[in-house]
Amino acid sequence: MNKDHVMQDDDRRLLLMAVEMAMQGVRNGGGPFGAVIVRNGAAIAEAHNRVVLNRDPTAHAEIQAIRLASTRLGTHDLSDCMLYSSCEPCPMCLGALYWAGITRVVFACDRRDAEQAGFSDKLIYEELDRDPAARKVEFVRMTDVGGQDVFAAWEALEDKVRY
Amino acid sequence: MNKDHVMQDDDRRLLLMAVEMAMQGVRNGGGPFGAVIVRNGAAIAEAHNRVVLNRDPTAHAEIQAIRLASTRLGTHDLSDCMLYSSCEPCPMCLGALYWAGITRVVFACDRRDAEQAGFSDKLIYEELDRDPAARKVEFVRMTDVGGQDVFAAWEALEDKVRY
Repeated sequence: MNKDHVMQDDDRRLLLMAVEMAMQGVRNGGGPFGAVIVRNGAAIAEAHNRVVLNRDPTAHAEIQAIRLASTRLGTHDLSDCMLYSSCEPCPMCLGALYWAGITRVVFACDRRDAEQAGFSDKLIYEELDRDPAARKVEFVRMTDVGGQDVFAAWEALEDKVRY
Repeated sequence: MNKDHVMQDDDRRLLLMAVEMAMQGVRNGGGPFGAVIVRNGAAIAEAHNRVVLNRDPTAHAEIQAIRLASTRLGTHDLSDCMLYSSCEPCPMCLGALYWAGITRVVFACDRRDAEQAGFSDKLIYEELDRDPAARKVEFVRMTDVGGQDVFAAWEALEDKVRY
């Protein structure tokens, strides 16, 4: 068996775990989404959507798995990790995985499948492309409230941890 | 004083609270970002960035404030709330506020200011616009792992809570 086949078998096995987590979500009163964080070929964090269960709009499967993996590894830096997800990550989760430094994503369903199941992130993609002032949700900027002073104070800190 | 002036005074006062939270972030070993969730004109949740403090890449100020507000209100639905942030929300936080149903955002610094301070979300905006297969981070789709079965099981649930 060549290396590509081994990788595809590993991907399939790990993605099946994410799909099984999504099924657990359906069974447990969560949303129908599951995610697994993988490091050195091993699953280190598994989660399903808990938005309604936790009363937390940010509790998507991917966010839950990233938070769990970070806690377990003791770092916000998951740049040696991969994400397996039962569905294509929404813009919130995509942002989270980039901030985490995740280097590879394997997913099953896509945004169109999710939309058909009643979970559409189309508006979010559209709004991200718009200038803040032109969005459906009102975005107002006020520039005279000392916001820049915060970044200046940050720059002046000697012991800051950049990330 | 007309209504517009009253609103602007309220916005300024609440945005100054978000900026003060950002300053607390700098003082407390967090990142230089602060956010406040407001309901009926009153601040119900305040937070600063805690990525490094909490070892959690998702712990941006806006996410922390949304999670805190949701916990306090006992619901994932913040559609009667507004977000005040010391800086323009990144794509992750923008996604979170849309999922929360937040209706209005007031912010001080913008993404260019954040980039100058070493916090660039430019790559995330660029990657969101790309087809998953064309991104710098590898996105691989596998369609034969039963992902659709999860949505079918969800659809068949009688007591599901749509959101």
